[in-house]
Amino acid sequence: MRLDKVANPYNTDLDRNPANHQPLTPLGFLERAASVFPGHTAIVHGPLRRDYASFYARSRQLASALQRAGMGRGDTVSVLLANTPAMLECHYGVPMCGAVLHSINTRLDAAIIAFQLDHAMSRLVIVDREFMPLMQAALALATVRPALIQYDDPVFDGPETDGIAEDYEAFLTSGDPAFEWLMPEDEWDAISINYTSGTTGDPKGVVSHHRGAYLLAQGNALTTSMAKHAVYLWTLPMFHCNGWCFPWTLSAIVGTHVCLRQVRAGPIWAALADEGVTHLCGAPIVMQLMISAPEAVKRDLGRTVQVFTAAAPPPETLLAGMQAAGFEVTHLYGLTETYGPAVVNDWHADWSALPPAEQARLKSRQGVRYLPLERLAVLDPETMRPVPRDGRSMGEVMFRGNVVMKGYFRNPGATRAAFAGGWFHSGDLGVVHPDGYIQLKDRSKDIIISGGENISSIEVEEALYRHPAVAVAAVVAMPHEKWGETPCAFVELADAAQADAETLRAWCREQLAPYKVPGRFVFTAIPRTSTGKIQKFVLRERAREIAD
Amino acid sequence: MRLDKVANPYNTDLDRNPANHQPLTPLGFLERAASVFPGHTAIVHGPLRRDYASFYARSRQLASALQRAGMGRGDTVSVLLANTPAMLECHYGVPMCGAVLHSINTRLDAAIIAFQLDHAMSRLVIVDREFMPLMQAALALATVRPALIQYDDPVFDGPETDGIAEDYEAFLTSGDPAFEWLMPEDEWDAISINYTSGTTGDPKGVVSHHRGAYLLAQGNALTTSMAKHAVYLWTLPMFHCNGWCFPWTLSAIVGTHVCLRQVRAGPIWAALADEGVTHLCGAPIVMQLMISAPEAVKRDLGRTVQVFTAAAPPPETLLAGMQAAGFEVTHLYGLTETYGPAVVNDWHADWSALPPAEQARLKSRQGVRYLPLERLAVLDPETMRPVPRDGRSMGEVMFRGNVVMKGYFRNPGATRAAFAGGWFHSGDLGVVHPDGYIQLKDRSKDIIISGGENISSIEVEEALYRHPAVAVAAVVAMPHEKWGETPCAFVELADAAQADAETLRAWCREQLAPYKVPGRFVFTAIPRTSTGKIQKFVLRERAREIAD
Repeated sequence: MRLDKVANPYNTDLDRNPANHQPLTPLGFLERAASVFPGHTAIVHGPLRRDYASFYARSRQLASALQRAGMGRGDTVSVLLANTPAMLECHYGVPMCGAVLHSINTRLDAAIIAFQLDHAMSRLVIVDREFMPLMQAALALATVRPALIQYDDPVFDGPETDGIAEDYEAFLTSGDPAFEWLMPEDEWDAISINYTSGTTGDPKGVVSHHRGAYLLAQGNALTTSMAKHAVYLWTLPMFHCNGWCFPWTLSAIVGTHVCLRQVRAGPIWAALADEGVTHLCGAPIVMQLMISAPEAVKRDLGRTVQVFTAAAPPPETLLAGMQAAGFEVTHLYGLTETYGPAVVNDWHADWSALPPAEQARLKSRQGVRYLPLERLAVLDPETMRPVPRDGRSMGEVMFRGNVVMKGYFRNPGATRAAFAGGWFHSGDLGVVHPDGYIQLKDRSKDIIISGGENISSIEVEEALYRHPAVAVAAVVAMPHEKWGETPCAFVELADAAQADAETLRAWCREQLAPYKVPGRFVFTAIPRTSTGKIQKFVLRERAREIAD
Repeated sequence: MRLDKVANPYNTDLDRNPANHQPLTPLGFLERAASVFPGHTAIVHGPLRRDYASFYARSRQLASALQRAGMGRGDTVSVLLANTPAMLECHYGVPMCGAVLHSINTRLDAAIIAFQLDHAMSRLVIVDREFMPLMQAALALATVRPALIQYDDPVFDGPETDGIAEDYEAFLTSGDPAFEWLMPEDEWDAISINYTSGTTGDPKGVVSHHRGAYLLAQGNALTTSMAKHAVYLWTLPMFHCNGWCFPWTLSAIVGTHVCLRQVRAGPIWAALADEGVTHLCGAPIVMQLMISAPEAVKRDLGRTVQVFTAAAPPPETLLAGMQAAGFEVTHLYGLTETYGPAVVNDWHADWSALPPAEQARLKSRQGVRYLPLERLAVLDPETMRPVPRDGRSMGEVMFRGNVVMKGYFRNPGATRAAFAGGWFHSGDLGVVHPDGYIQLKDRSKDIIISGGENISSIEVEEALYRHPAVAVAAVVAMPHEKWGETPCAFVELADAAQADAETLRAWCREQLAPYKVPGRFVFTAIPRTSTGKIQKFVLRERAREIAD
């Protein structure tokens, strides 16, 4: 005999209330760190040491000052800052008054910044003295008239500006350090907006919410086993996806931020040795900078430092060099739309016994989902069916879960397109290996279709990178009368290296199917975006000109 | 000039959808672990080694079998199991079919189990062979008639039973290992029900939800810096608050569960040495068992093992002994209503340089909020105002946040009372030290009011514990004609130790204010609940009889 089914009794008289339900927000991590470890060093910046009590008090003070200046829920506060204490304070102080943080890439030109300020309807801007001329040029082009605050970083020794803006320190100290900061009304409330870098068209404003920031910030620590009191060096720009949420992760584990205005080998090695850095993030170029530094600059660390890298697979020689220098490198992957890293090349201990080339091959794969990402898949965008796990069948990399953006700001069309079929479409093309690890093969716009065959530009680039004379390679489609398209290779040679088109063509013939061998080799400086990404749309334009 | 305020644009066209919003659930941790590290050992039990692929497949198979047996959303599946692989499978398989896991304390008597089965409206019961007689006795008293499954653990060498129930292994393998398990419809859906142990009256069914279990499971790893591939020994009963959510934590970090049917020194030391255990949990009695083991049983580990302890502050001698034996002890605190630990004695590195007695004093404090608990406070329950941070003013310990239960099952009155004023009322009395760490002083029912003065029974007990002859002390209120109440001390002496009432009275006079010195000393075996908690309500009854 069994009891008859009744209405679900576990949904009766068991409702949400303030005692058992609160909005998830990473802002509370700072409150906890300041309350439990008030004297622990939160921020190091040159000679400055700031503890958690002070970091929290100043963040509340900033929030209070912003509120007094009229900022509140739904307002955009834009910042054009280097990796400084002010930038960290903004990651807490801005959302603590209910406003939305808009971090601007400091390498952009004035026109794009003006576009962002207008599109984000910016009401207040905080600018590092170094970037004040750039901001003034942007404001001259923009329609909005935000209030202007200047952050005067003592570490910056560039020219003075002429008092055109309110001083950050004076503004901040006008606020109340005991300000009762605003919790989000809902964990779905926006915490930040970040504009995509525009390799594929108009910049889009990616809106993140408190829930996702909370989860990804924890996910960083969990996925990478980052322990209490870790010391984190800011080689990754914080304007880049809010520094992959690490400004919030560090408070969760009561760690120490080591600021860095500029990514140069000397300050990096000094911080590694003198500040006890345990973790840092950056594109492969950062690692390249570190290990190619003069021996006089390098320091013996006597311990392993964790490095998280993204943007491009780390090449084998770089990995070997980093390992020899005492670094453990983890490969991450994500997009602005996924709060930064949402995929990790989760390393298997037994892989470390393999030959270096095999390890590099395994590590070049982007990997598997982060813990707070619910689903990661490579789907045929037509049928939305998963591609076979054969390491060869290409599909579009798609995400589903709580660390996917809220959507594109004031762009419902792009938002709908990005979320079509209930998945976030990354625009990246990839394969799935038999063990479930994904590997990127191309941006969907970068695929080359020659005689009806898809050619991965990445595959051709990898073949070129294996040639010792090649420093940088970028392959795009060039119009071709017979085949429709054919690969065109742009190449930067390594210092003092020599190679001509014939040499590289012969090299590619050994490595690739004949139809994948580039029809042209162009030796030139390769254009990049402000975040260091190769501007393929510029190269495609040049390839078209060459073909004409 | 500033832009006029408009409706919050960050709430427009930026809605939840399946691509960017999924219910939080710890069940996905297992899917990820099995997908990324299918061959990693998930479970060790005697000679059995089970990897994550198999753990996940079997959990899905169990879910499928349960669904075929008619279990679904809102149904209660009860289990009476030791710390075995089946118990771990139930923590996934039961909620994977939408049902609610009801773990029963194996030390309870048949009448209380019958009460729980009826109150939880249990529809199916899974029972370890060892506890089948107990379950049969309970079912003879209960009204419900759940389906009965028996788990036959090869490690258990007790008597056979006579085939009165379906075999667990046969039942499980009737399911589909590729079953598409059910996500919760909402992260607020119940995942489990656990009955309080009843030191303070009728058992109440504490309902937990997927959201809280997800957050506390992650919080365990984050708060205690538990890294990838940790090896966890099951010295804590899994029926106790779902093993403080560690069955789910371990999947998040792809760790290994080492099962343990019985908490005995031999198997513990063997597991520590042979299985590479890195972490374990338990009441101080577990540590006592470990360090008081014969030298022949102890093993040299050559590494530090993390121990998380709760239920009572670890005494100084125990801490010193543990430290000498290579263990690092962290003191946690929580209740069934907070998913297990929600408070941690978060250790400051510089405290380790203090004298042992001072360290023990600091470690005896319950501490500060867990990362996923939003607020922890000691409030005056009348005014709901915080008590001063003076280490002396007592108030009630209260919780607010996402790791507070959904409520008490079928008990809206108790739920309302527990959540009065927007805080969960723990019933524990405590103080806040100047550094914000809380310390328990008593259960609110255990406070003794003598001549209008509050006496903390814990304070009196602590004084008694400092006497070398005292092994266990429990102090309760005894009625007193003049003062209303006076403390009555129940004492168990240490082996071979001697002390009489006069000795202890003189000792207490040296340590305590005169009105706190117990009026009576009773030398007796002290009654405990099945989870080892002292049954003060029994002692209060005896004190009343003595006074009459």
